[in-house]
Amino acid sequence: MPSDIFAESLALHKKLRGKLSVQSKVPVKSRHDLSVVYTPGMAEACRQIALDKKAIFDLTWKGNSVAVLSDGSAVLGLGDIGPEAALPVMEGKAVLFKEFANIDAVPIVVNASSAKEIADVAVAIAPTFGGINLEDIAAPECFEAEREIKRRVSIPVMHDDQHGTAIVVYAALLNAAKVAGKRVEDLKIVVNGAGAAGTAIARWLHCTGMDDNVCVPVREIILVDSVGAIHNGRAGLNGAKRELAKLTNPNNAEGRLAEVVVGADVFIGVSRAGLMTPAMIRSMNEKPIVFAMANPVPEIMPDEALKAGAFIVGTGRSDFPNQINNVLAFPGVFRGALDAKATEINEQMKMAASKALAKAAGKPSRENILPNAVDKGVVPKIAKAVARAARESGVTR
Amino acid sequence: MPSDIFAESLALHKKLRGKLSVQSKVPVKSRHDLSVVYTPGMAEACRQIALDKKAIFDLTWKGNSVAVLSDGSAVLGLGDIGPEAALPVMEGKAVLFKEFANIDAVPIVVNASSAKEIADVAVAIAPTFGGINLEDIAAPECFEAEREIKRRVSIPVMHDDQHGTAIVVYAALLNAAKVAGKRVEDLKIVVNGAGAAGTAIARWLHCTGMDDNVCVPVREIILVDSVGAIHNGRAGLNGAKRELAKLTNPNNAEGRLAEVVVGADVFIGVSRAGLMTPAMIRSMNEKPIVFAMANPVPEIMPDEALKAGAFIVGTGRSDFPNQINNVLAFPGVFRGALDAKATEINEQMKMAASKALAKAAGKPSRENILPNAVDKGVVPKIAKAVARAARESGVTR
Repeated sequence: MPSDIFAESLALHKKLRGKLSVQSKVPVKSRHDLSVVYTPGMAEACRQIALDKKAIFDLTWKGNSVAVLSDGSAVLGLGDIGPEAALPVMEGKAVLFKEFANIDAVPIVVNASSAKEIADVAVAIAPTFGGINLEDIAAPECFEAEREIKRRVSIPVMHDDQHGTAIVVYAALLNAAKVAGKRVEDLKIVVNGAGAAGTAIARWLHCTGMDDNVCVPVREIILVDSVGAIHNGRAGLNGAKRELAKLTNPNNAEGRLAEVVVGADVFIGVSRAGLMTPAMIRSMNEKPIVFAMANPVPEIMPDEALKAGAFIVGTGRSDFPNQINNVLAFPGVFRGALDAKATEINEQMKMAASKALAKAAGKPSRENILPNAVDKGVVPKIAKAVARAARESGVTR
Repeated sequence: MPSDIFAESLALHKKLRGKLSVQSKVPVKSRHDLSVVYTPGMAEACRQIALDKKAIFDLTWKGNSVAVLSDGSAVLGLGDIGPEAALPVMEGKAVLFKEFANIDAVPIVVNASSAKEIADVAVAIAPTFGGINLEDIAAPECFEAEREIKRRVSIPVMHDDQHGTAIVVYAALLNAAKVAGKRVEDLKIVVNGAGAAGTAIARWLHCTGMDDNVCVPVREIILVDSVGAIHNGRAGLNGAKRELAKLTNPNNAEGRLAEVVVGADVFIGVSRAGLMTPAMIRSMNEKPIVFAMANPVPEIMPDEALKAGAFIVGTGRSDFPNQINNVLAFPGVFRGALDAKATEINEQMKMAASKALAKAAGKPSRENILPNAVDKGVVPKIAKAVARAARESGVTR
């Protein structure tokens, strides 16, 4: 029951006053301890790093730490609620980083009013961390912020709402297509929502920036925003959407979701509660695949979707089958990147993560297209694949 | 043996690969756990904070967390070694925050090239933290950075090299004067080093910004930098030093340390190894008090100072008696400020900390002018005094 879960979660937040703590690995009980852990002893570690910056990875937490950074401009389904109200999410992600991948993650919520300001803060604090997980930043600012940060630092950086989502959706799609007996390259896919996640999914399904031998584009992708389908003839598109119009919708289909979803094999919702209807599902191709991933309330509830004929239904939530949640990706991706001493997270590493995740599901079925989100056996498999891809693509230090 | 301590400390740093870890307070073992700790449950905490920003203190770690922030421009005695090489220090401080005051402190080292850049980063990340401890930032940038951050945020902010040092030095001075049978207001004090610490100590000894009923200025303070005594007639002083020239050195004494230290009751060194000599100690007033606080190597070694006639000798180090180390102040100051829900750290709170620390030494003696730096009974005493001062001065939320 969602309302019970909200009440239980709020009570837990009130009780804990923070889901994280910072712990010392060493006790400080004597003046000798103090002189080893602190002054004068630690001056030697400082000197070593001053001589060779790379020593920071061996002498501090940098080799195992990730900043979970957000400006709170696109939080869950709640929208632009600001940095303060975003902190529970960033703490939650840091909990998952620790519990799933033993990474020391620090929530950082920032006052920022532009992509440049977000990038400037992230770059400024980057010496502290081994990686940066960007989170809940609105489109189109998230695209520029991520691009700018990646350009200016040489540690792994990933905007999870884009790439974490795309990694998990693609893995889910590979397995769902297999269960439905369809080939990925034959699919017509409608993505509802052209924010961070929708854009990244569409670019991925189009194999943008990927090698031909690792990625096969799907037959047709149509991206729908609040106005309707994005196509080349539409006036008033911003830069990011103009680019999407060129990549997607090869037949320049026009109209609202209800019109363009007709005949589609797959619906991917990264938008808002209730935007998908039973009638729309009935209009789709046979064995329709419905990923209704809006949080906390999906575009259509699973029971309704199944009743309308959906063959496979996934949501972002823990309380329904087929949870298509980023927690299946980001811990393993960063674990692998840190283990490989990667200097970035590239397309090869993301594709390796996606395929490893699909494989980790074992033999997929209608209610099990992905591993259980709390299956901690998934992270080592993804991490291993990501680390290998980092080494093979030559992005390690 | 310092060299052994450096080797032992470096080995520990290599072994630990970071002196801190981030821990989750909740296990995530089931999908139910995931829906309470993460999505969809945590959306409720987000909503509560979006409705009332103050709820962030009850629902996240903000009420108990402090950022330990540095640009690495003035680290220990090592100078401007940069943010990376400063990280072991910030981790060390975070360890002490946890071990002494149970505060969740996060090291943040930043790439910044001006006071404005430091301030901008600190203000940007401020929503994440309940307080900001600035650290190892060079003068005069540290003055402007702290002033600017304090102006723009309403959480406790303190540049520890300035105020933490001044708090502990003043407590040490109160007790040393008592042991030497001198009155604080009769003292002639020479401060060697006009950086962050020296400036803050001089301003404090002059009772700048303090109420008459809590602070009595000393008779004479002379501040000495690498050129010599700072006085009104000296050409080429920067803004911060021009201000100091007005406050201090009432007789406009000129000359190098050896000349102005003649007849002084107290020498306070916040400068560099070896700048104090036995001959200078012999030139001081009777029962000379010598605080040689350069780190890691003091201005004069304690055995040498005592041989030359010093009555009381203190250093910054853990391996000699009378350790005048900020660890005696900052954990209690921030603990008190967080407990009182203070919106800043003001002069009253700092003076309360200093007097509580002096009192915590019990009956002081030549080798015990301050409590042992690892005496964990000190923090609650300081915290209580600081919290009361915060409430009495009306700076709580």
